[in-house]
Amino acid sequence: MLSNVRIVLVETTHPGNIGAVARAMKNMGLITLYLVAPKKFPSADATARASGADDVLASAVICKTLFEAIGDCHLVIGTSARSRTIQWPMLDPRACAEKIWAEPDSTQIAILFGREHSGLTNEELDCCHYLLKIPCNPDFSSLNVAAAVQIIAYEIFMAAARSAKPCLEEQLESPLATALELESFYQHLHQTLAEIRFLHLGRSRSVMRRLRRLFNRVRLEKKEVDILRGILSAAQGKKQ
Amino acid sequence: MLSNVRIVLVETTHPGNIGAVARAMKNMGLITLYLVAPKKFPSADATARASGADDVLASAVICKTLFEAIGDCHLVIGTSARSRTIQWPMLDPRACAEKIWAEPDSTQIAILFGREHSGLTNEELDCCHYLLKIPCNPDFSSLNVAAAVQIIAYEIFMAAARSAKPCLEEQLESPLATALELESFYQHLHQTLAEIRFLHLGRSRSVMRRLRRLFNRVRLEKKEVDILRGILSAAQGKKQ
Repeated sequence: MLSNVRIVLVETTHPGNIGAVARAMKNMGLITLYLVAPKKFPSADATARASGADDVLASAVICKTLFEAIGDCHLVIGTSARSRTIQWPMLDPRACAEKIWAEPDSTQIAILFGREHSGLTNEELDCCHYLLKIPCNPDFSSLNVAAAVQIIAYEIFMAAARSAKPCLEEQLESPLATALELESFYQHLHQTLAEIRFLHLGRSRSVMRRLRRLFNRVRLEKKEVDILRGILSAAQGKKQ
Repeated sequence: MLSNVRIVLVETTHPGNIGAVARAMKNMGLITLYLVAPKKFPSADATARASGADDVLASAVICKTLFEAIGDCHLVIGTSARSRTIQWPMLDPRACAEKIWAEPDSTQIAILFGREHSGLTNEELDCCHYLLKIPCNPDFSSLNVAAAVQIIAYEIFMAAARSAKPCLEEQLESPLATALELESFYQHLHQTLAEIRFLHLGRSRSVMRRLRRLFNRVRLEKKEVDILRGILSAAQGKKQ
């Protein structure tokens, strides 16, 4: 159950937090943990704070880059305490849990948690279909990373307990694109927009961010990515 | 707000947990902490894990007995991972939060958390109006005390936020495009795809249908339509 949901910790500094995350996950039936460039792992502190969730730590996948951790995922959700300048589709933990629970088991899902002091970078958030913000005291809004995992895992457990798996309303015609396929598409898009001189130096970043936001919102199918890239190739071809 | 709700920790062993509880409380707008016979407090470990919730620690009330901590309370709720032989009224965190939120401000409310290894004694549970059990993995059901406080405080915060005003769903930055604007966009798209020779006679209809399905799914904003049409114009411009 829920083995398609992975928790991804990005550049965690304190190994104790990694252990506490493993415990919080296992308490709520989650088992798949990815660690992107942890400062210190394995560690006795992690094991102590895991309090018996040793299996989650032992099977944790350690990655050098975020992309190694999410490349095969169809739905990527990033936790964020801040609001971004450019607005991104937002979920609270309950809505997030319902969305996750409604997905077919074949959907690989990643929930990203950033560094203890600075969270996720804008570039990391750009990879996300949704941002997840935990409602809290606006004057003291920085949750411990394991506490944040605990709340979200609890909501997922509650959603699962509340209902049997819902029937899929909209049967998808073809599989969703993976994060890797999306990234290749964005690169192709960027390059094409430069070639057709739509992108000018200086404003390229904000336009690309807007386009990512648009296409992440739609949750593209693989076939649709193929069509869009066909269009890009045609636009490039004209140049020659 | 919610100053009538106190968190009571009974004989906590690790001061780090007390600090983590203070942080979890303050994150969710709770400020009143009672400590019954803590093993070690104050402590540098508590302060470190509080991460800035020093005010909650500084104002914590230290008691020798449970009764000192709850004597003036009108509603006492005890957390428990076990089921008792004798049945007691049970709440889950969500129902508990709704009950607390529905009480008048004059009701003094205590939520009790037991020792790290053994929880609350039967005698302590006997003081409670309700028992509170956090739904979790039956094979790994012992939550860290700060994690348990975090979930319950979060549910109280959610209950309070819900009845004040509805949560931010997906806030849109700019107005959605109208059907007319969308139709103009689709015509522009069709024309451009023909010009760049992406569309061939015969398959144009099914490709356009797929693209409409894609863009209708995303529910485009007006600003996004403008960007997309800018891209189309750039692609057309190259031709001349």
